[in-house]
Amino acid sequence: MKLWVCCVLFVFACQSSFADWVRQPFWYDDARRDKVAKGTVWPQPKNIQTTTQSLSLDPEGFSVVTSDSAANSADCKDVLDPAIERYRGLLFWIPADARVSVSGDSVLGRLRVTTSGTCTKYPNLDSDESYTLTVPASGDATLSAQTAWGALRGLETFSQLVYEVDGKHKLNVTTIDDEPRFPHRGVMLDTARHFIAVPYIIQNLDAMAYNKINVFHWHMVDDQSFPFQSATYPDLSGKGAYTQDNVYSPEDVRSVVEYARMRGIRVIPEFDSPGHMQSWGQGHPDLLTSCSPTSIQQDIYHLGPANVARNSTYDFMQRLFQEIREVFADEYLHLGGDEVHFQCWMSNDEIQQFMQQQGFPNTTEGFAKLEGYYIHRLINILKEFPKRTRGIVWQEIFDNNIISGDFTIDLDTIIHVWQWNNSNFQGIQYWDELPQVTAAGYRAILSSCWYLNFIDYGRDWPKYYECDPHNFTGNAQQKELVIGGEAPLWAEWVDATNVVARLWPRASAVAERLWSPQNLRDATAASPRMEEHRCRMVRRGIRAQPQGPSYCKYEWNQANNVPTTSGAQGIMGYVQQLLLLFSSLVLTFGLW
Amino acid sequence: MKLWVCCVLFVFACQSSFADWVRQPFWYDDARRDKVAKGTVWPQPKNIQTTTQSLSLDPEGFSVVTSDSAANSADCKDVLDPAIERYRGLLFWIPADARVSVSGDSVLGRLRVTTSGTCTKYPNLDSDESYTLTVPASGDATLSAQTAWGALRGLETFSQLVYEVDGKHKLNVTTIDDEPRFPHRGVMLDTARHFIAVPYIIQNLDAMAYNKINVFHWHMVDDQSFPFQSATYPDLSGKGAYTQDNVYSPEDVRSVVEYARMRGIRVIPEFDSPGHMQSWGQGHPDLLTSCSPTSIQQDIYHLGPANVARNSTYDFMQRLFQEIREVFADEYLHLGGDEVHFQCWMSNDEIQQFMQQQGFPNTTEGFAKLEGYYIHRLINILKEFPKRTRGIVWQEIFDNNIISGDFTIDLDTIIHVWQWNNSNFQGIQYWDELPQVTAAGYRAILSSCWYLNFIDYGRDWPKYYECDPHNFTGNAQQKELVIGGEAPLWAEWVDATNVVARLWPRASAVAERLWSPQNLRDATAASPRMEEHRCRMVRRGIRAQPQGPSYCKYEWNQANNVPTTSGAQGIMGYVQQLLLLFSSLVLTFGLW
Repeated sequence: MKLWVCCVLFVFACQSSFADWVRQPFWYDDARRDKVAKGTVWPQPKNIQTTTQSLSLDPEGFSVVTSDSAANSADCKDVLDPAIERYRGLLFWIPADARVSVSGDSVLGRLRVTTSGTCTKYPNLDSDESYTLTVPASGDATLSAQTAWGALRGLETFSQLVYEVDGKHKLNVTTIDDEPRFPHRGVMLDTARHFIAVPYIIQNLDAMAYNKINVFHWHMVDDQSFPFQSATYPDLSGKGAYTQDNVYSPEDVRSVVEYARMRGIRVIPEFDSPGHMQSWGQGHPDLLTSCSPTSIQQDIYHLGPANVARNSTYDFMQRLFQEIREVFADEYLHLGGDEVHFQCWMSNDEIQQFMQQQGFPNTTEGFAKLEGYYIHRLINILKEFPKRTRGIVWQEIFDNNIISGDFTIDLDTIIHVWQWNNSNFQGIQYWDELPQVTAAGYRAILSSCWYLNFIDYGRDWPKYYECDPHNFTGNAQQKELVIGGEAPLWAEWVDATNVVARLWPRASAVAERLWSPQNLRDATAASPRMEEHRCRMVRRGIRAQPQGPSYCKYEWNQANNVPTTSGAQGIMGYVQQLLLLFSSLVLTFGLW
Repeated sequence: MKLWVCCVLFVFACQSSFADWVRQPFWYDDARRDKVAKGTVWPQPKNIQTTTQSLSLDPEGFSVVTSDSAANSADCKDVLDPAIERYRGLLFWIPADARVSVSGDSVLGRLRVTTSGTCTKYPNLDSDESYTLTVPASGDATLSAQTAWGALRGLETFSQLVYEVDGKHKLNVTTIDDEPRFPHRGVMLDTARHFIAVPYIIQNLDAMAYNKINVFHWHMVDDQSFPFQSATYPDLSGKGAYTQDNVYSPEDVRSVVEYARMRGIRVIPEFDSPGHMQSWGQGHPDLLTSCSPTSIQQDIYHLGPANVARNSTYDFMQRLFQEIREVFADEYLHLGGDEVHFQCWMSNDEIQQFMQQQGFPNTTEGFAKLEGYYIHRLINILKEFPKRTRGIVWQEIFDNNIISGDFTIDLDTIIHVWQWNNSNFQGIQYWDELPQVTAAGYRAILSSCWYLNFIDYGRDWPKYYECDPHNFTGNAQQKELVIGGEAPLWAEWVDATNVVARLWPRASAVAERLWSPQNLRDATAASPRMEEHRCRMVRRGIRAQPQGPSYCKYEWNQANNVPTTSGAQGIMGYVQQLLLLFSSLVLTFGLW
């Protein structure tokens, strides 16, 4: 009997540790093999030296302290203090009843954060995001940055170093010296094809912060709807929104801009023109061109692109953009400029007359000139603003210039390369477009290979990971002019039901490409880190979808609307195991 | 001044009604054009006559009453009473402060529900799901069905007739006489590639009920993990689950089966063998075949399909299936049988010896016989159970028979046709497989064209809608033997973060194909109903993803974890509009 009891206890004791050992190499699929990553960082820092020497963290005792430093310390603290509180919460996730005491361990007691440069209220394209982070074998960990933005990046990295082992939060002795490869690292949301409520924009801003994405390109309005509530022109959303609930009030916009600011994320709004403006015409039909015959535009009003022949159009845009500039804090506005339907312009007498007056021929080149004329006037309007304002435009504006040769867009304007192949112009691939854009002296941002709205079956993040904005033939100066890129998520098939899962972790691949060194090209090698990062995002409440058969210690669980915590069931799990074992033995012996 | 005020009031008054009129035809995309459907039913009933004569419903006063009838009225009430309570809640969704009184309208006061046949505790393949539903111009509406299951279908239909107009719940005078085209209409979830927590299975069961899906095929375990907690063999999940939190306890399973039962949904578990059993080998390596050389199976244990040479394997399966039969209530168990790797069997001496003893040649035909032998013994095991038990198998089991000619599987067994092209056998398409299966006298269910795990960019539901299980060359008897189909959602890339959005509303296309008359083939014509149905599901808390640029009156909104209600903001919206209009006028006049 005693032997039997001993056997039972022995087998039981073996169960838990044996299971892990048995399972570790036993993967059917790469994704499970990826489970071994612990405390890795995504995106990978520029310089990182890790060791196997681990330290424990005490959730009760650990502290993060800042050192007052430079002149604008108020601006620094304004961002840093809430960030420190936020990250302190993110450092510890093991449920209280599953935690194991770290007394007796080598414990890291404190992180000291210093900013030594000038802080600004808002992040901008030139912000310094560099930081150094040291987790030494003994003494305090130190995080130093020039600005609060760099400190934010460092705090995110520090939080990722922490991993879980047997009920303890741990991290390894590490030295990091980090800065981004590109200064413009963005995600674009489209809130016109479907309205996306503010809570979902907020969730995405959190996810962006976890991935060191620093630009939220907000494609607010388009043909289908105009959800931006303008005080200057209330009929824009009053008539153009899908419903009066599917609108962004000035307060909504302010809250998004502020939430982003606190995470070092710039919010760049896009009010696309002269194309993509159907919804504007609902409240302001005079803004748009009447198309004739009506087959060109099949809605009942037959309205096409902006009517660029009328001064009233420019007055309207001037007032609207003045308001937009006040509501959004960034120096840059995205003016759009893509996919303009020249046929409607061609069919309209007023436009025809205007083109004759301007000396624009009635050819594709002529319409390219016309669009260039319009954008040029818009950019001049921006230049008159009291606060400095510059434009970003889709690549057609540049491609138009190649055709027309006129109205060279201000070199301050950033060209957004989005087409894989600009078949409506020269029919060249984006890696041939980038050299042209940069040879002409423009800065460029790349989106062509990162259209996350185009979904596929299977493991698609490697193709986003492997696309490099510098992968074109050009000199160092040209490469310098490529300042980054963005992952657009067009929303024809996306709304609050699926936006977060569709964007993450696929956008994480883009995030690393834009932050980390160019030589990190191997998606297979990056897989363990991607898997850990995905589970980390899920643990933090981001609905990042899976990337292959696998599991996270903390799965997404609706019951609490928070990720499932396994620890809370730790003890019950053991009791359950014991009972099951006992009952199975009884059954076995009973049957026998 | 008075004129000015009048103008303001006039314009303001026009805003709301004008906006809707302006917007109606002004669609950029088909999906918005779909917005006009109100009170349509999905899936479309077999016979439905609608009128334009509308009746109002009073959320306070409306009642649903049942008539006691047939002998098993206890079984009927057991399902019907909770259903009536549930559907009464689903009938009314306009927020209280947005509702408009219906006094003075033609009001429908009551729905009378009668069941006139025998009810069973659990639904089964032969259950009668027919019903008639009459909403007359005056008097009570009546819903009659043979069984509680038919009444459930009728209640769902009745709830869909209700639509919203200007703060009122309405429905039109309608007569419906309905029954499903196929008796087996399923959705398959895979909880082995990723664990899917019970709350998400529950959500899917709700969605299934809204779509008259009556089978939940639960592919519980597979190579990657074994989450089913067996009392007989606790090591199956004890060693084979991803983690001890990623398991389904007996209580979990009972709650799923019960939740499904109350919605007239059968739960058919699948314990796939002899292939797809890697996770079983974690706790019970003796169950599986050792592969040699080890390159055939690259995990450290080199275990392949079930070791079908050992009697202990059959004893094991007998005990396990006995337990499964008790835990799950349905007469059918899905035995799997797909994708067996013959090479591992070929490499094993014990298997080789066994095959010699049985007289099976060492060829593909021989291994087909071997697998047939195994399934044949399994089915005989099922036949010995005290409760009647029958099997469903993947098509390889039938295809094996064609090769081997032996061990003809019991004709009670349903063949599950899943391959588009069975390239590992004859290389024929599923519309050539179905005639073979049915010519041999077997019943078939189809999945080949409905693999919802294979995602695509864009509007993909039409291709699911247009696939018809009877689209093959065969006589009436053969067509009769095709008893329905299932939409599988394999979970390599699916877990709780995205399961509901990926499944719905795409599975709704399959639901209509399996319920509605064959001649409803036009996906474009069905689009308005699909769009209304999708928004209805979102309104009811199902995260059904969008199918093109559009909007729902009630969008998905996380803030309340319930869909956004526009009504609650109705009055505030008007006040807001007025303020905006006023301020814009002040601005305009001020500037002028």
